[in-house]
Order: sequence, then C-alpha cells, then structure tokens
Amino acid sequence: MYSFKNDYSEGAHPRILQALIDSNLEQEDGYGEDRFSREAVELLKERIGRKDVDIHLLAGGTQTNLTAISAFLRPHEAAIAACSGHISTHETGAIEATGHKIIEVQVDNGKLTTANINAVLEAHTDEHMVKPKLVYISNSTEIGSIYTKQELEQLCDFCHENNLILFMDGARLGSALSSSENDLTLNDLASLVDAFYIGGTKNGALIGEALVICRDFLKEDFRFHMKQKGALLAKGRLLGIQFSELFRDNLFFDLALHANKMAMILRDELSKANIKFLTHSPSNQIFPILPNPIIRELQSNYSFHIWEKVDADHSAIRLVTSWATKEDQVLKFIEDLKGLI
Amino acid sequence: MYSFKNDYSEGAHPRILQALIDSNLEQEDGYGEDRFSREAVELLKERIGRKDVDIHLLAGGTQTNLTAISAFLRPHEAAIAACSGHISTHETGAIEATGHKIIEVQVDNGKLTTANINAVLEAHTDEHMVKPKLVYISNSTEIGSIYTKQELEQLCDFCHENNLILFMDGARLGSALSSSENDLTLNDLASLVDAFYIGGTKNGALIGEALVICRDFLKEDFRFHMKQKGALLAKGRLLGIQFSELFRDNLFFDLALHANKMAMILRDELSKANIKFLTHSPSNQIFPILPNPIIRELQSNYSFHIWEKVDADHSAIRLVTSWATKEDQVLKFIEDLKGLI
Amino acid sequence: MYSFKNDYSEGAHPRILQALIDSNLEQEDGYGEDRFSREAVELLKERIGRKDVDIHLLAGGTQTNLTAISAFLRPHEAAIAACSGHISTHETGAIEATGHKIIEVQVDNGKLTTANINAVLEAHTDEHMVKPKLVYISNSTEIGSIYTKQELEQLCDFCHENNLILFMDGARLGSALSSSENDLTLNDLASLVDAFYIGGTKNGALIGEALVICRDFLKEDFRFHMKQKGALLAKGRLLGIQFSELFRDNLFFDLALHANKMAMILRDELSKANIKFLTHSPSNQIFPILPNPIIRELQSNYSFHIWEKVDADHSAIRLVTSWATKEDQVLKFIEDLKGLI
Amino acid sequence: MYSFKNDYSEGAHPRILQALIDSNLEQEDGYGEDRFSREAVELLKERIGRKDVDIHLLAGGTQTNLTAISAFLRPHEAAIAACSGHISTHETGAIEATGHKIIEVQVDNGKLTTANINAVLEAHTDEHMVKPKLVYISNSTEIGSIYTKQELEQLCDFCHENNLILFMDGARLGSALSSSENDLTLNDLASLVDAFYIGGTKNGALIGEALVICRDFLKEDFRFHMKQKGALLAKGRLLGIQFSELFRDNLFFDLALHANKMAMILRDELSKANIKFLTHSPSNQIFPILPNPIIRELQSNYSFHIWEKVDADHSAIRLVTSWATKEDQVLKFIEDLKGLI
Repeated sequence: MYSFKNDYSEGAHPRILQALIDSNLEQEDGYGEDRFSREAVELLKERIGRKDVDIHLLAGGTQTNLTAISAFLRPHEAAIAACSGHISTHETGAIEATGHKIIEVQVDNGKLTTANINAVLEAHTDEHMVKPKLVYISNSTEIGSIYTKQELEQLCDFCHENNLILFMDGARLGSALSSSENDLTLNDLASLVDAFYIGGTKNGALIGEALVICRDFLKEDFRFHMKQKGALLAKGRLLGIQFSELFRDNLFFDLALHANKMAMILRDELSKANIKFLTHSPSNQIFPILPNPIIRELQSNYSFHIWEKVDADHSAIRLVTSWATKEDQVLKFIEDLKGLI
Repeated sequence: MYSFKNDYSEGAHPRILQALIDSNLEQEDGYGEDRFSREAVELLKERIGRKDVDIHLLAGGTQTNLTAISAFLRPHEAAIAACSGHISTHETGAIEATGHKIIEVQVDNGKLTTANINAVLEAHTDEHMVKPKLVYISNSTEIGSIYTKQELEQLCDFCHENNLILFMDGARLGSALSSSENDLTLNDLASLVDAFYIGGTKNGALIGEALVICRDFLKEDFRFHMKQKGALLAKGRLLGIQFSELFRDNLFFDLALHANKMAMILRDELSKANIKFLTHSPSNQIFPILPNPIIRELQSNYSFHIWEKVDADHSAIRLVTSWATKEDQVLKFIEDLKGLI
Repeated sequence: MYSFKNDYSEGAHPRILQALIDSNLEQEDGYGEDRFSREAVELLKERIGRKDVDIHLLAGGTQTNLTAISAFLRPHEAAIAACSGHISTHETGAIEATGHKIIEVQVDNGKLTTANINAVLEAHTDEHMVKPKLVYISNSTEIGSIYTKQELEQLCDFCHENNLILFMDGARLGSALSSSENDLTLNDLASLVDAFYIGGTKNGALIGEALVICRDFLKEDFRFHMKQKGALLAKGRLLGIQFSELFRDNLFFDLALHANKMAMILRDELSKANIKFLTHSPSNQIFPILPNPIIRELQSNYSFHIWEKVDADHSAIRLVTSWATKEDQVLKFIEDLKGLI
Repeated sequence: MYSFKNDYSEGAHPRILQALIDSNLEQEDGYGEDRFSREAVELLKERIGRKDVDIHLLAGGTQTNLTAISAFLRPHEAAIAACSGHISTHETGAIEATGHKIIEVQVDNGKLTTANINAVLEAHTDEHMVKPKLVYISNSTEIGSIYTKQELEQLCDFCHENNLILFMDGARLGSALSSSENDLTLNDLASLVDAFYIGGTKNGALIGEALVICRDFLKEDFRFHMKQKGALLAKGRLLGIQFSELFRDNLFFDLALHANKMAMILRDELSKANIKFLTHSPSNQIFPILPNPIIRELQSNYSFHIWEKVDADHSAIRLVTSWATKEDQVLKFIEDLKGLI
C-alpha cells in the first residue's frame, strides 16, 4: 500500500531531524525568543529580500489562519473567501469561532478574482450586513491551481483601492512558487499581499508555518494574539530549528521541486493515457477523473482521497505528492493504472 | 551561563529524537489517526489502568486549557481558579477569548480548597452573575506545591455534590507524581478528576500534552473542538511518537524523578545554608529568598526568574530543574551561592 | 409621502399605549419578574395550548436569534439557513459573533426543504467541518412566503431523525398565521418546532418578541444567556404589558389580519392590472415587478424598498403593510400606479 | 408594601408616555434613523456643549457596556474595573462573552484611582498576559459614591499618558450629576472621558441609554457593532422620543434631583437616629446598617435588598429612590424605622 493521500504522510526531511539532534542540549529561552527562531527569521527576511516585515513561527495552518485573521479584523468585519477555500470548509468554523463571518464566493478553478470581490462589496452596503474587510486566498489553491503575478497584482490594486486586507494562505506555497507555471517570488509576495505564510508542515518540516506580516498596521502586538490562541510554543526552538534548516540554503524549494516533479510525471503520463483532469493543476495535487471500478482496483494498492463524483460512472481522485514521494512508486502507479484501463 | 529558568530550555530526551528518526519514512494518516498516536493512547490507558477514558494529544498547555475548557462549558458558565493559576494570569486571556469568565480566588500555597470554592458558590446565586461550573487546579501548582490524595478526594466529593467539573492542568504532572511527598497515581486521577492532562513539553518531549477525559458527558465531539482551535496537527504522529516513547517503559517518570532529584539537592543544600523559601515545594520548582546583591552576582553565571520582591532587601527567585539539568551544574550553583553568602 | 417601507414605521397600537399608562405607577420587580410579564407568559401559554413550554420576552429579532442560537449550540455546531434568511444576511454577523458558522443554502421561494438540509448533512461528515445542528427557518419568510403544516411536519420529522434543532424566526409570525393560505396554529408550532418566537415589534408593539422554548433540553438556564447578551431589560414590565395586551383577547391576530388584508388588496388589484410579482406571497410583504421609470414616479409620493433588479428595465419593489396601514392610502397607491401604467 | 428596591420599579415619567402618544402614528424610518432620534441626538449635543461627539441610543446598560467595550478593544486587550463594578459581577460575564478579560481591582468606596490602575499596569508587562487597555468606572458607583472633577482629571491624565481608554458607565449618571456634592458637568465629561453613557432606564425612561463617544478613533462603524449585538432597535423612535422629551428642557435633571432629595431625607433622618452607613453616598442609593431583627420587621411593609452582612447581628440594606419615589412613603419609612429602634 503506497499513499498519495497527502503531503504530510511522512515525518521530516532528514536534515531537519539532524538539526534537532545537533542543537538538542543547547539551553535557550522559550516562546520563540531562542537563537534558532531569531536565525530563522533573519534567513527568511533575507530570502524574501525585505528587512521590514515581521515574521512569526506557528505550528499549523488552521492555527495560523485563525490567529492572523482574528488579529487583523474588528468584530464586525468579515473575510471573503472562495467556497473551496480551506477556511470556508475544512477548519470546523475556526474563523467564525473567533467571531467573524466568512463570505463564501463561488469561483472558477479555486481562485478569487477582483470581479468576485467587487460583487461582494456591492452587496454589502450598510450596517445591517457585515463589513467585508479581508480577502483570503490560497496559493496553491485547494485544487492545485496557482496565482500568476498579474492576477495577484490585480487583487493587490483592487484591495488597496477598497481598503481591504489581502491575506494569502501558503500552506502549499513551496509547491506554488516552484511550479513551472509560476512567475512569482517571495519578494513579490511581500509587495503584493498584506500578510502571507510559508508552509513547512506540507513541505518537509515536522510542523511549522512562517507567517510574514508585510504591513505595519497589522504588526502591533501580534505575539499577544499568538499566546492567546495557544500558538506560542514553549519550545519555540522546534520551529526555529526547522525553518533555519529549510532556508539555510535551497532545501525548502528543492523539496517542493521534487514534489512538483513527481506530480508532473503523474499528470503527463495520465494525460498521454487520455485521462482527463478535474482542474488544471501545475502543482503537487492533481485530480484525474477515473471510472469508478478502476478507482476501486487502485485502492487495493494505493491510498488517496476520492475528491468528488463526476458522473454516474466516474469520479475525480486526488493524488498528492511530496518531498518524500518515491519516483519508483509514481512509475508503478502509472503502470498499474495503465494496466487497468 | 547555566540556566535554571525553566524546564523547557533544551530539546527532547535523546530516545524521543531516535524514535522520530526510526519512524520517519513510514507513511501514516494525518490528524492523530496514525498508528503512533493510537499506540500512545493505548500505552497511556494501560498506564492509567482505565480503558474507558478518552485521550487526545495536543501541542501545548495553553492550547489544551482553552480547547478543553471551552468544549466543557456552556456560554454562561465560568471557571474557578486560583489567582496564581496559569489560566488566570499567564495565558493572555485565552479562556476569556473563548467567552468564559474566570472567577479568581486568593489561595494559600497555590492550591484551591473546598472552602474557596464554596465561597464562590455562595456569592453566585442568580442569573445576573455567571454560573460557576468548572474548577481549574494545577498539579504541581505554579509555585511548586502538590495536591495530596486527601485534598483531591475532598475536591472531588465537593465538585460532584455541586455539579462542578474538576479539571487538572498537568503541565508539570510528571514532577508532581514523582515527588517524594506525592501519594497520588494516574489511576487515582482518573477517578478523582473529570479531565486532566499529562504534560510532555516540560518533561522531556519537544512538544505535547496528553489530555485524559474521564467522564462520558465531556467526551462527545472533542476532536471537532480540537480542529476548531487549531489543535489538530496534520502530522499528529509527532505527538504520538513522543508519548509512545515516554510511556513505552518508565521513561516519563524517570525524567521527572531526575528533575525532582536536582531540585531537592538545591533545596536541601540551600536550607542547610539557612536560606529560606517562599513556598514549600516538593517538586521541580523552588523559590529561595536571597539578598538582592547576591541575586545580582548569581545572574552573571546563571539565568533564572526573579519571582517576587519579598522586602526592601530580599527577593525570591525561581529555580527550575528538568530531565536535562546537570548535577554538576547544580552542585556548582550551590557552591557559588555559598561562596557569596 | 406615504410609507410602505416596513411594518415598524409607526409606534404601537393605542391599546398598548393605554396599557402602559394604566400600569405606569405600579411598583414591580425588574428583569421580567413583574406581574405583567408573568401574566403575558400565562396568556401566551393558554393561547398556545401548552403549559410545558418556557416563554421569555426579549426586545428585538436579532437579539432573540443570537441569544437563542448561541444558547442552544455547542461551539463546533452550526446553523443551517437559507441564503435569504435574516441571520444569513441582515444581522451583521450576529450569529458568527457568538462563534457559530451559518451554512447558507440556496433555496426556492425563501423556504428550506428536507432535501436542502440533507444535502448539507451529506457534505458535513467529519471533524474537519462544522457539525450542522440547528435549522433556522422564518415564517413568514423574508420574501413573504409561508410554511404549510405539511412542510413543517416534514422538517420536524427530518430534524428529529437527524438530531437537529428546528428553530423558527417568527418576527412576522402574526402575518403568517393570519394568512388565508395558512393551516398552522400556535399549538402546531409548539409540537413541530423546538423553539420559535412570536414577533411583537412588526405587529403592533413598540418592541418585543416572545420566545417559546418547546423542548426541555433547550430550557436550562436560559435567563443567564439573556442577561449575558444584554437581553434582560431592567423594566421587563415594558414587554410584559405589551404582550399581555396583545394576547388578552384577539388583538395580536386582528392586527395581523388587517396588515394581510391591506397587502391582499394591493396584490389583487395589481394582478388585475397585469403586474407580475417576484414571489408568491400570501402575507404582509409583496414584491411587484415594475418598469423602472414608474418606480421613480411612485417614489415621489411613496416610500418603499427597491428589492432587486429583474432585468435591464424592470425591478421588484417591496411593499409592506402593517396593523397601521390605512386602506385609503392603499387605494390611492393602486389608483396612482394604474394611472402610471 | 412600598418598594425601595431599585430605581426601575415604575414605568416612565408621564411626559414620556404623552410624547409616545403624540408621535404614535407618524411614519418614520427604522433603526434610529427617525426624526425623533435625530432630534434627541441634537438636544443631547447641545446640552453637552459639544457638536463633535457621536451619540447612539441603546436599550439597556449591559447592552451598552458590552457593545461599547467590545467595539473599542482588540482581542488581547482587557478592561480594568473595580471588583464592585457592574461589569465585574452583575452582567453574567457579558464582557468576557465578547472575548475580553476584566482585571478586577479591590478599591475603596467603589472608585478606581490612578494608583489602582498603575498597579495593574506594573503587573502586566508582556505578551503572556492580557494588555490592560480600557478603564471602566461607574458614576455614581454601585455603592452610591460619585467622582469629583479632580478625581476624574487625574484618571483622564493618567489614561492619556498610558494610552488607556477611559469609559464611564452612567446608568445612574443623572443622580451623580445632580448630587449636592457633584462638581462635574456633561461638558466636563466629554472632555475627561473617552466615552460615557447617560442612563435613561433608571431615571424616568421606559428603557434607554445614550452613549456618547467623545474621541474620533472610537467612533468608526459603531452602528455595525450595535446591529451585531442586537442593539439596533427596529423602532429606534422609542428611544429617540424618550430622550428628546428628557432633554427638551430640564426634565432629566429634575427627575434625578427628586430621587436624590428623597435619598437625602432618608440619609439625614437615619443619621439623626444614630444609624451608621456602609458607605458615604450623596446619590440615590444609600446603605444603612441595621440590626437584623429590625430589618426583618421592615420587610413586612417595605421591599429592599439586603446588601451585605456586616457582623453577626447587623446587615447593610440598600435603599434606592427614584423620580417616582413618594415623599410621604419616605417619611413613613423613617417613622416606622424610628419606631423599631
């Protein structure tokens, strides 16, 4: 049984474990005030090319989303997100639990456009409705698509003109920025969005997301919010050591490139076998549409999510690759699938 | 510079790191549904001697407190805690942020008594005040004291008679249960309190607390609450592997015994040197009272918290020992201190 | 200028004002423990034909919705509502501000069906999503439609089978129950829904909604929730006096019948003039579709809401009638409109 | 049986009822956008002598406190209040339910001092604790005392120096400002505090509090917060009409003067009879200390709250007078009490 179920099926890249071992007995202060966390922040700032951002290390994606969004908004303000957005559907109402409505928008291909947001603004005109204030986007999206620089520039301009905060969930940012179709850099992000995070959990770390706050008005007292939400780890060093190792050289992107490469082998070979896909995905999640009996056959040797029913006889499945995905397993899957068609 | 600042200054016990390495490339499901987490839960149930409890692994203490307390209470219900309780003062309003008041009570030696709680009940009589519903205690307490079995039995009886939930913060439970003055077992706890947790972060793990829910009416849907609060780690295995290793044999208690032993050496030797203590502590935190100039001298070679001013010339400092505290450093500290008196 | 803008444009029915005057100098206890509030509750129980319900008097609709829904739900539980539901769009995120997601569903004619709810249940299957728990319906709905007894029985059965709470917003319940198409009684409601309220504000009172809690498990400690949300008025007598007067005889329903009669005159006469309507409404809100220039003409003598654009040249407007609507103004409006066609 | 239990035992001053009758059939817009509410705001601004304040009319005290405080604070910020403050003890955790901790301080005579607040600031130094941000005071206080201009100037200066918001609960502001010991004006308040409210419910209105927001940074989007908390009444006219009537001439203060006069007769006559008081109160609540048997005797003809036990044989009772208190009943109470001594 080999798993294409997600990109967090294994532990961490061996270099990260080695870094934990090497630093293990050094005494350091708690709560992210250790030298490893400080080093991670410096390495990240360097890589982003901006000294004026604030960077905080948190444990996971839902935690980062809820801590940031609740810190950024006043009680009557709402987030706008795609219906398929992670905060809309897969965080058990974490954002609402902090008091904020999510205005959910039907979108194409997982991505919000200025037209989507404008329609929300036009519908929310007075104090009897929430005030739309934060635009939540994911890159890569929950269905594998990625934002282009042009798309992000349009969102950025629109948000600034309309006094909206643009927030990017980067749980899979490594894969997005490493995609062959990507034209964005970390430096671009720091200019175009108001806050974003760089996901470690799904790209080779044990746990960890690095939140980058790019605008001064969002920075104040952020550590208070982290503590209040249970997001300030006593052993913050655990996050610092991992991000230091990921960004000491090109490890973070090398891992993402491997994940993408495995996904592209799957995509290209399945395409050649005339298999269609639910979405165009240039990142580490692909969604081939297969006849249901073939899906059942595959399940005896592979684990993956059945994403959605396409018609009476076909469903889309989700195949996720990661830094740890083995190329020989990818090739075996392709061969097995071809044998079933 | 050697640190007695806290019990989370170092990484993890080497066996835990080794367990992470050994399991690293095994593919497992996410969100605590991996075999390591399941194994940890089984080992914990066995050690507690109760199969009917629910056990959940969370990342940290504040997170565990806020997730459990907000899951257990209805909106108008409040927690009762000592003024010195961790949730009262050192969690940035995490409990209030979930909507619940903490009724703070002045206590002696960090411990709540039935008299304390009864006074609260007598003062809260109608719907114009919150309804006291959950009693929060810490063991060991924030100032090093521990609960005896008799004290806990009294609290248990009182809470049951008054329809109150008894919740124990066990961030330092290892040290409490390993104290020479302790007469409680994990099995006792499962009978006497309604929920408690076993702290890993402060006893040799990288991160992790094991929440034990002992009563059926508190169990329902608890994983929903974890997810909503950002407490369901994608790589839940990280917690499972650590707790499996800590409870595979006696490692968890061995680490706590070492921490306590180091604290008792400090306590006994300082006592011999006629140094007084702020509190009676039989666990891994002690609070010697020292002349301010001597404290300043010590600070050039040791780091620790200055806990509180005692009089114009004296302050109490907090010395915390851990699984990682080195005996030769303890002896050197004693020698240095004696040299200063 | 005559207003068909809403059913709260005037003050209160003169009998209510007289009752306030008559009782004015009697000394009574506060917070709904006065004899007027007790009398109102008894009159309402009698009228409903059920002694075992709990009844609470609150000031307004949003307040009643947020107090009840937050009292009924645990933190991870969500409400299901139509997109057009009042809590979905016109309460500034009041429900989310208490921590709960509203799962919004596209519906026909403003009414939720078991099929709508079932689709939500099928999509919410695990702890990564909120748990759907409460079904929110309005009667009459926000677009004037009303529920039949059969529809409500189906919802009731479905909710009980699926352990869901069925909650009815009755801000305009008087109009619904007084509609010529209605086949429901207050007694039916107490059997079929778990809680509902009887709106006074939009049916002749100055302010006031009577919340009826029909199931024991929803009753406990409700006054605590009211106080916490600012919904326990010091002079609760203000609500008690009004509801006593409204339900001392048939006043409440007489007022609603008048409102409906005025709306039906409008509807029938406009229909005869070949005007179409956006929805089928047998209650006190109707939505005729008119050419935009005619709407503009009407606005010089009448005030009303423009509800929505229908096509490039037409819009639907909302005409609301009330206990205070004057028949001569209704006839004049019809005449004026006919003159414009 | 005559009641000195509170100042909301009767309905409203007859002029208010008359104003409701006179305006009853005028059609007006809802939600505080009616001409009566606009007039009330203008009259209040004139009386305060400041055109640059924002004024909102709400239904009750708890509602005003929770709406204002939650609008003014970010999630990690806390209110400082006296232990005896209304928000601390008698609002069922309304403030905490919006997510904010109240830091409760032991004070003398119900009033906060700069020393009290400074002690809180010194104890709250980092992100592991909430950030004290808003100072809540009541005038008159819950035990009848009032603030002097000098005291308020000191609080004002201290709050500004320390970036704290000063908020005054004025549920009984009429009585405070009408006290013979008062040296403050409404105009002073607008300069010295950042927001305050003028209580109508306890001074002759049916319901209603007028919140005055004096600083620009607290004004933005306040009506959104009102709507979200259920505090925007559909028939906002009910509040507007009442405050217009109260502030059209001197009615508001005349009513308070009468209440105070009745209390002072009680206080002076009881003093002459050598009865001691729990607190020094120059406003409409007084707290005589009486032997328990005498209290029991009085209870057969008068209703009042027993405030607290003073010693084994004595308790303090609370006598509250209002705009509606009859002088002959006051004299009869004095006579009856004297007869019992």
